[in-house]
Amino acid sequence: MNGAVDLPLGQAELSFTAAGDARVRRSVLPSGVRVLSEHVPGSRSVTVGFWVAVGSRDEQHADAAHPATYGSTHFLEHLLFKGTTSRTALDIAISFDAVGGEHNALTAKEYTCYYAKVQDRDLPMAVEVLADMFTSSLLDPVEFDNERGVILEELSMAGDDPADVANEKFFEAVLGEHPLGRPIGGDPVTIRAATRNAVWEHYRANYRPQDLVVTVAGAVDHDALVADLTAALTRHGWDLGVEAAPLDRRSESPAMLASGTPLTVVERPIEQVNLLLGVPGIVATDERRSTMSVLNAIFGSGMSSRLFQQVRERRGLAYAVYSFAPAYSDAGLFGMYAGCAPSKAGTVAGLMRTELERVAEHGVTDDELRRASGQLAGASALALEDSDTRMSRLGRAELTLGEFADLDEALRRISLVTVDDVQALAADLVSRPFSLVAVGATDEAALHGAVDEIAAGTDVA
Amino acid sequence: MNGAVDLPLGQAELSFTAAGDARVRRSVLPSGVRVLSEHVPGSRSVTVGFWVAVGSRDEQHADAAHPATYGSTHFLEHLLFKGTTSRTALDIAISFDAVGGEHNALTAKEYTCYYAKVQDRDLPMAVEVLADMFTSSLLDPVEFDNERGVILEELSMAGDDPADVANEKFFEAVLGEHPLGRPIGGDPVTIRAATRNAVWEHYRANYRPQDLVVTVAGAVDHDALVADLTAALTRHGWDLGVEAAPLDRRSESPAMLASGTPLTVVERPIEQVNLLLGVPGIVATDERRSTMSVLNAIFGSGMSSRLFQQVRERRGLAYAVYSFAPAYSDAGLFGMYAGCAPSKAGTVAGLMRTELERVAEHGVTDDELRRASGQLAGASALALEDSDTRMSRLGRAELTLGEFADLDEALRRISLVTVDDVQALAADLVSRPFSLVAVGATDEAALHGAVDEIAAGTDVA
Repeated sequence: MNGAVDLPLGQAELSFTAAGDARVRRSVLPSGVRVLSEHVPGSRSVTVGFWVAVGSRDEQHADAAHPATYGSTHFLEHLLFKGTTSRTALDIAISFDAVGGEHNALTAKEYTCYYAKVQDRDLPMAVEVLADMFTSSLLDPVEFDNERGVILEELSMAGDDPADVANEKFFEAVLGEHPLGRPIGGDPVTIRAATRNAVWEHYRANYRPQDLVVTVAGAVDHDALVADLTAALTRHGWDLGVEAAPLDRRSESPAMLASGTPLTVVERPIEQVNLLLGVPGIVATDERRSTMSVLNAIFGSGMSSRLFQQVRERRGLAYAVYSFAPAYSDAGLFGMYAGCAPSKAGTVAGLMRTELERVAEHGVTDDELRRASGQLAGASALALEDSDTRMSRLGRAELTLGEFADLDEALRRISLVTVDDVQALAADLVSRPFSLVAVGATDEAALHGAVDEIAAGTDVA
Repeated sequence: MNGAVDLPLGQAELSFTAAGDARVRRSVLPSGVRVLSEHVPGSRSVTVGFWVAVGSRDEQHADAAHPATYGSTHFLEHLLFKGTTSRTALDIAISFDAVGGEHNALTAKEYTCYYAKVQDRDLPMAVEVLADMFTSSLLDPVEFDNERGVILEELSMAGDDPADVANEKFFEAVLGEHPLGRPIGGDPVTIRAATRNAVWEHYRANYRPQDLVVTVAGAVDHDALVADLTAALTRHGWDLGVEAAPLDRRSESPAMLASGTPLTVVERPIEQVNLLLGVPGIVATDERRSTMSVLNAIFGSGMSSRLFQQVRERRGLAYAVYSFAPAYSDAGLFGMYAGCAPSKAGTVAGLMRTELERVAEHGVTDDELRRASGQLAGASALALEDSDTRMSRLGRAELTLGEFADLDEALRRISLVTVDDVQALAADLVSRPFSLVAVGATDEAALHGAVDEIAAGTDVA
């Protein structure tokens, strides 16, 4: 391959060699089911994921046309483990436990993924059980109410974690009313109100053949995988002969975001203040995506990064401090996190803002750029040793990007990033409206002062 | 090899093939430095660890003979990243960041480990930097005070995490005055009081050639490793020609523990109660170690386990619920965790106790035993795909067990465990004094009731 390969929805078969001799193959079945595999030579384990492009952002307030309510995507994810027409919840659990496999699921803002990591010989079992869960879950009413209790405890656990709370508030503060700003799991009110019928409708509407993407990486033979999957889905009642086109990829133009909330304070009688400061970022398909990776590496990833050096190494103000840049189809964020003493919150927020502004005004050095390249190359190479990372990469390629770029291509794009690109992106970011979130025993006056300075700084930059 | 190989301190060279064609080699240098490597065919990455058998349990109250104070082992661990005679803290950070390596350290109750995971070509760099940190750290007074602030924030972060707090209180409740009962990081009072001189003495006394164990797994050539390590340690001032025997392994007879604290309550205005219920367990070298692994798998590990089924699946009382069995040289614990609603804490604690008693009274089934074997085999095989797991296994073998057992041997031992063994161990555990820890907005009366019932149950069992 020459580095990047398009994944057209209508193309039935694709096959190419990726960096490191991994072999990638993709089949689109007549029913619209998509199957992608990456065979990694020498691997003895394998990770399989069943994906749908439905996440919390797709939930609507309950009405006749949109019966799913906030948190119901995550609720449904839990229920898929609770029994099918041919397996009890315990049967499902035993299938994976008996072979020491990892199996779990993840509800995100724009997708849901059910996955398992097993030894090579157990892949057919994993495909069979995941296919059964995906096609034939019962959503039994008794299990539904039991699981409501479990989910309420999961929400309570997250609610007791101040960093989790800060993260949810940060999305809300930066993205406002945009559906990506909502928490993934709903809240206790929506979970208590959720009905089995609404979740059932959500399931029937979004778990069809044309919605399903199966990605597998590691010790996998593509033809055997397609045969096993086809047999399993058919056995569980799907007619894969019915012609249907795969679901169109999500494609929205970048959202027009309302100006964010400048300051959000959640008072908690705890020791640290969990601070998040940030701005709207770039979307997942933005051409500056590689530049963002480089900026984030230089600015706030790793012990040599500017944020770590300024906040932790030189001043000892925090233990955890970093930046991050999540990106979605029509919005993104750039955020900086630190956990610090309440009396230092204003100082730390000011330092974060000043450091980003320094990049915007004075750029980064050639040395920093070179190091960021090395860091991203090495970290990616290490990450790709895990079949889970490769499985996820295939999922993102198919669901979001419509293109598979291997490691060589990703690094080539990184190598094209210039110091000017990094500075320009930082300048763009500091020109956007900042949102500050503080969870803890805050000194609100000091935070207001910091917010004022940050707002003033924005005008100067 | 025939499965398990002794690692006598006095034996200069050892070499054998372990399960899966990994080649294990061990060299004891004249100075007492020990080097163990496990070459994994086909691996492209490598993890290296520098270990000493010094942990928080070895700290003494400050006096002339024992200048180190509580938390100073962890304090020292932080300081090793803060600069040497030839490298600044930033230099050290850059070395690993520039190649995208992971580098970090871990202070435990009985050891400290500095480690790095890198691509194969970067191993000589990792060895050089870790050797420099280990031999030549400055413990600069200015850096010392900066790092004090970082550590205080680390303690605050842990103090804000109710599950962390519950875990520390649980060790205290079960182990009482035993040194293993103390928290690893000290507390804000001991950290504020720590002096550079005391930590320096701790460093000089415990980071000598005869203390050092270097373990490496993945893409490693043993002879080149020994040559690189010898050169690096010599370059940084160590005389490896001075004859010294490796430090004796820790060997204590199982501790006589005072009866634990029946109930510890930490009031927090949060949503969940973090519950831990448990008893003293077995030591790391106990011959029932494999039986404990099987019991823990059946009882509280995985979605099909009894605890998960009873507490979460059937009753929806918790999201996180599991058991665990940490083991040390002269003491161990068996614990059960759940995060639940305050109103359910008494019920959940009772269920935990009842379920363990059920195993003690009625045993487990052949099916459960078979599944546990499969679970442990599969999970171990998957875990050993990571070079970090193998690096750690080598460290534990050398520091704690004095024996290397490969996967085949570990599984052989598991296969010898009978349902009677499991029942006998559970019966032994339920006969021990239970400690209950609750962190959250607790209903103390309900918890006292649960404790009374648990105490009554103990007499009946």
